[in-house]
Amino acid sequence: MNDRLLRACRREKTDTRPVWFMRQAGRYLPEYRRIREKYDLLTICRTPELAAEVAATPVEKFGLDAAIVFADLLTPLEGMGITIKLIENGGPFVDEPIKSPQDVKRLKRFEPDAVAYVCDSIRMLSGLLGDVPIIGFCGAPFTLASYLIEGRASRDLIETRRFMLTAGEAWRELMDKLTDMALEYLKMQIKAGARVVQIFDSWVGCLNPSQYTTYILPHMRRLLDQLSTHNTPIIHFTTGNPALLSAISSAGGHVISVDWRIDIGEAWRVVGYDKAIQGNLDPAILLASPATIKQAAEEILRKTADRPGHIFNLGHGIHPATPPENVKLLVGIVREFDANC
Amino acid sequence: MNDRLLRACRREKTDTRPVWFMRQAGRYLPEYRRIREKYDLLTICRTPELAAEVAATPVEKFGLDAAIVFADLLTPLEGMGITIKLIENGGPFVDEPIKSPQDVKRLKRFEPDAVAYVCDSIRMLSGLLGDVPIIGFCGAPFTLASYLIEGRASRDLIETRRFMLTAGEAWRELMDKLTDMALEYLKMQIKAGARVVQIFDSWVGCLNPSQYTTYILPHMRRLLDQLSTHNTPIIHFTTGNPALLSAISSAGGHVISVDWRIDIGEAWRVVGYDKAIQGNLDPAILLASPATIKQAAEEILRKTADRPGHIFNLGHGIHPATPPENVKLLVGIVREFDANC
Repeated sequence: MNDRLLRACRREKTDTRPVWFMRQAGRYLPEYRRIREKYDLLTICRTPELAAEVAATPVEKFGLDAAIVFADLLTPLEGMGITIKLIENGGPFVDEPIKSPQDVKRLKRFEPDAVAYVCDSIRMLSGLLGDVPIIGFCGAPFTLASYLIEGRASRDLIETRRFMLTAGEAWRELMDKLTDMALEYLKMQIKAGARVVQIFDSWVGCLNPSQYTTYILPHMRRLLDQLSTHNTPIIHFTTGNPALLSAISSAGGHVISVDWRIDIGEAWRVVGYDKAIQGNLDPAILLASPATIKQAAEEILRKTADRPGHIFNLGHGIHPATPPENVKLLVGIVREFDANC
Repeated sequence: MNDRLLRACRREKTDTRPVWFMRQAGRYLPEYRRIREKYDLLTICRTPELAAEVAATPVEKFGLDAAIVFADLLTPLEGMGITIKLIENGGPFVDEPIKSPQDVKRLKRFEPDAVAYVCDSIRMLSGLLGDVPIIGFCGAPFTLASYLIEGRASRDLIETRRFMLTAGEAWRELMDKLTDMALEYLKMQIKAGARVVQIFDSWVGCLNPSQYTTYILPHMRRLLDQLSTHNTPIIHFTTGNPALLSAISSAGGHVISVDWRIDIGEAWRVVGYDKAIQGNLDPAILLASPATIKQAAEEILRKTADRPGHIFNLGHGIHPATPPENVKLLVGIVREFDANC
């Protein structure tokens, strides 16, 4: 068993720190693009053979220390009676966004059977990878609410923030329903074989600390507390606002995953050394020269070398324009640094 | 003369703190929308009578303490030989984005005559407003570079960041040319009657502190140093990354304008009490109820009440969906708070 990721989540020593990348199975890979020529995104997610294949490819190609389930952030919403469609460029969107408190009431209780294919894909991926751990994942309630309300990714999330500020009880009901769903969906993935889970609060950085504390923290705390009883390490990921880090860390998670906007040494200090940390190379660095990649990666490696508990990753997903050879180079830089430590 | 803004920039006491809003002359106002039915954005910018009228309207309507020149962020690029066009929804874009170091070489030295209408608009606005000061403005080099490279506003600014990380000397040349332009363009506005200037580094928050220090800070420092000799207060505005605040403040400016992502008390502490501070109400709050607006505004007013030097503003521009009566309500909340202090 490759136990680097699990040990790092528990802040135990490892021979070399674990490396994996968000969107490691994505459009930057020619293998993935070839499959996407034949199948759209949702078809790949819903077909365990395809989902397992695309999730396994980068792990085998680059010698990574974890695979992540191939699914969309919106996938579990299907289990709540929401219809997901694809726009022209391939991105998913919610067909009938939430506009009112009545729409929140209509959200169904999560039905695991509707997305049972995610469990099949985890089991198939286990079969392909053998000893490499699989990360299950779910969007956090705020981030999923933003898709439910805006319909799709949005620059300023103004409708979501308006709803949060004005809907009162309906906002709490929406967060509660999404928290319940996330618990069920992640437990289902753990049962199917996910050894670690990551919660993506990708868009929460548009809030300020006071808003986070009022509207988000109680729900995240419940989610993370109730999930913690499952003895599976939890990675809590956010982007977009370093000023939230202390509140985010207080909400919970064994590992806090930080984006590239903050120095990782400073981030770990704020998060607290009683948690592990994941990140935080700028995805744009992978579009630069080998010398720039080496310098930026080594800065992160140096600043996290003092104690166990760092999981090397980017600050957000791999950009589609990334040359795959730069990913290979980066993994080599991490391995070499740790071999000389 | 209404000298509240100028005094606050110098951290001197005022009878009541100054209030103005970014995008106070914008689509949320019915008066502005009526003018936009007849003229497109660039026509309004280029027609001093119209530009002065739309800039004066909110000042008179709400009793604000400053007007801001009505121009687009891209306006001064016309003085460098760049063609600005309008896309369907009315937003401006750069017709031929910068793709290579050769494109940087082709950028012309700023020609003030090409945008002389901005000066006419300032003089006309002075005539309309009498004793209310006018704020001149310019985009910061990084933010203008992002439009030159992406063509328009972009979510991840990946092309800009790639160019910054890889172009070496061409990046410095681009920053130098934009810094020279900003100096000329702002001096021209000061000469025409702008009493304060604001530099908008609206998109710099996608960088981390190390990148800001390497690629941006030297240019911002030159811009702010050379501009400081003109004895006109400078407001230095950014959004998107509280972890940059200390470096941003060290670059210069008499006032640091912060977005809503950080507690303003904490922001002022990081910025340093030797500078004034502007901000930082979340624009989304203006879409909420009167009680929510009052609570959020008073939190900011309380946290900045200990010393002179706070300019009340939003953290970014007024959202088009904002009800104008909420802007009126907000100004009243600020006035009432200060009257009772």
